[in-house]
Amino acid sequence: MEHSPAQAPIGIFDSGIGGLTVCKKILEKMPKESIIYFGDTARVPYGSKSRATVIRYAKSCASLLIERGVKLLVIACNTASVFALETLQQSFSVPVIGVVGPGARAACKRSRSGRIGVIGTRGMIGTGCYERKIQQLREDCVVWSKSCPLFVPFVEEGWTEGKIIEEVAQIYLADLMNEEIDTLILGCTHYPLLRKVIGKVMGPSVSLVDSAEETAIEVKEILEGKGWLNHAEQRGEHLFLVSDTPDTFVKTGEQFLGAQLTNVQWVDL
Amino acid sequence: MEHSPAQAPIGIFDSGIGGLTVCKKILEKMPKESIIYFGDTARVPYGSKSRATVIRYAKSCASLLIERGVKLLVIACNTASVFALETLQQSFSVPVIGVVGPGARAACKRSRSGRIGVIGTRGMIGTGCYERKIQQLREDCVVWSKSCPLFVPFVEEGWTEGKIIEEVAQIYLADLMNEEIDTLILGCTHYPLLRKVIGKVMGPSVSLVDSAEETAIEVKEILEGKGWLNHAEQRGEHLFLVSDTPDTFVKTGEQFLGAQLTNVQWVDL
Repeated sequence: MEHSPAQAPIGIFDSGIGGLTVCKKILEKMPKESIIYFGDTARVPYGSKSRATVIRYAKSCASLLIERGVKLLVIACNTASVFALETLQQSFSVPVIGVVGPGARAACKRSRSGRIGVIGTRGMIGTGCYERKIQQLREDCVVWSKSCPLFVPFVEEGWTEGKIIEEVAQIYLADLMNEEIDTLILGCTHYPLLRKVIGKVMGPSVSLVDSAEETAIEVKEILEGKGWLNHAEQRGEHLFLVSDTPDTFVKTGEQFLGAQLTNVQWVDL
Repeated sequence: MEHSPAQAPIGIFDSGIGGLTVCKKILEKMPKESIIYFGDTARVPYGSKSRATVIRYAKSCASLLIERGVKLLVIACNTASVFALETLQQSFSVPVIGVVGPGARAACKRSRSGRIGVIGTRGMIGTGCYERKIQQLREDCVVWSKSCPLFVPFVEEGWTEGKIIEEVAQIYLADLMNEEIDTLILGCTHYPLLRKVIGKVMGPSVSLVDSAEETAIEVKEILEGKGWLNHAEQRGEHLFLVSDTPDTFVKTGEQFLGAQLTNVQWVDL
């Protein structure tokens, strides 16, 4: 009889702390799962770096988690999902899930007018990945995209509300508002922390798609489909690995995870 | 007879493009010098990372330049200067210069009231390095410091003037204004590009110290002292190395260097 991987942990990696928003949603939906999270804090951010460099980094992150026996791998970083999903799917035998596919699918389901917006880092937006994915799923959709490079630094500075971030958001989102989109994909794991500001600028007629939430739904479907959900009595155990020293990760990470961060360890890449 | 290193290039490294402001000042003062610049664009930024990680990165940057035969090494990054100057001075036989010492010396010379401010990245400000250096040089000085984590992203986004960056600067600089400093050290190589905004907020009574300029003066003094200045007929030749692909470096770097960036090559770290 083959050993079922149900008890094995889910592996999640991100360039830093942003992926903790994905981790949070996975834990909300599957509290019995154990998680090993890796944040590549020594090399963060990925969003401004090249395809070649991001693929190289993503491979090392994935290998580290695979060696620790994860049953499924989540790339909880939009930039790495775009550049490295295929490479990682070809390199490893466990299921590998990115955040772009789930976000695009949710937007296609939700949009009535077919006018969809995407915001994200410069690197990710430059690839046109959401446009392509959405076109494959629903030909009648039109997609507008905009990179918002200052959103991540504002979140990391903790300036997630107030006049200044609203002015920044108004500048970045002006074109999308003019195009009268009805759905906006938050294509970066930091952006759910700006949901209030983005919602205020875009108005109540625009539905915001949080890729973190959609990715967690897809993870659950895959594990269910394979019979790999963990049905243990107690809650899962979690381990957080980082490539830089843990202090800043712990301090800033808790607002992303929405819970206390314990069991954080440094690893040498 | 010993071979004089006068013809050898000067080595400069930084976490990314910011150090080009130092490069620019060195070339203005010593146009006959050849330069090898290394920007660690695959691992940028250093300002938010730990001491241990920054020392490890600085060592690899320095080794790369030493192997290429530089006669003097400039750490054109405030964070790396603070964390790694001593380590690099002990590891290599060529003179190694950081940007903190020159900035502190210039501020001490220039300040009348002895009330000095310092701004920089969170990592650098957290070390208190400028305070210590200034106290060593001039006991009567009092130093106030403030980290301004959004300044670098604003410069890299190209938003170096206008209402929003002024509002951000007003928030960051409010405490320093209340302390009635007469001298402000721009303790990050990106900040000279915000000189206009910072000057406007601080007012004409505050003198701004640009570490890049002061570092170039010190490099010249050291080379003169050793008889190592290059007295060639023609201008020097320059080589720019980066750890990520060169495209963004070339595009954004020219405003830092104030000249066209040619001869940019990728190196694998």
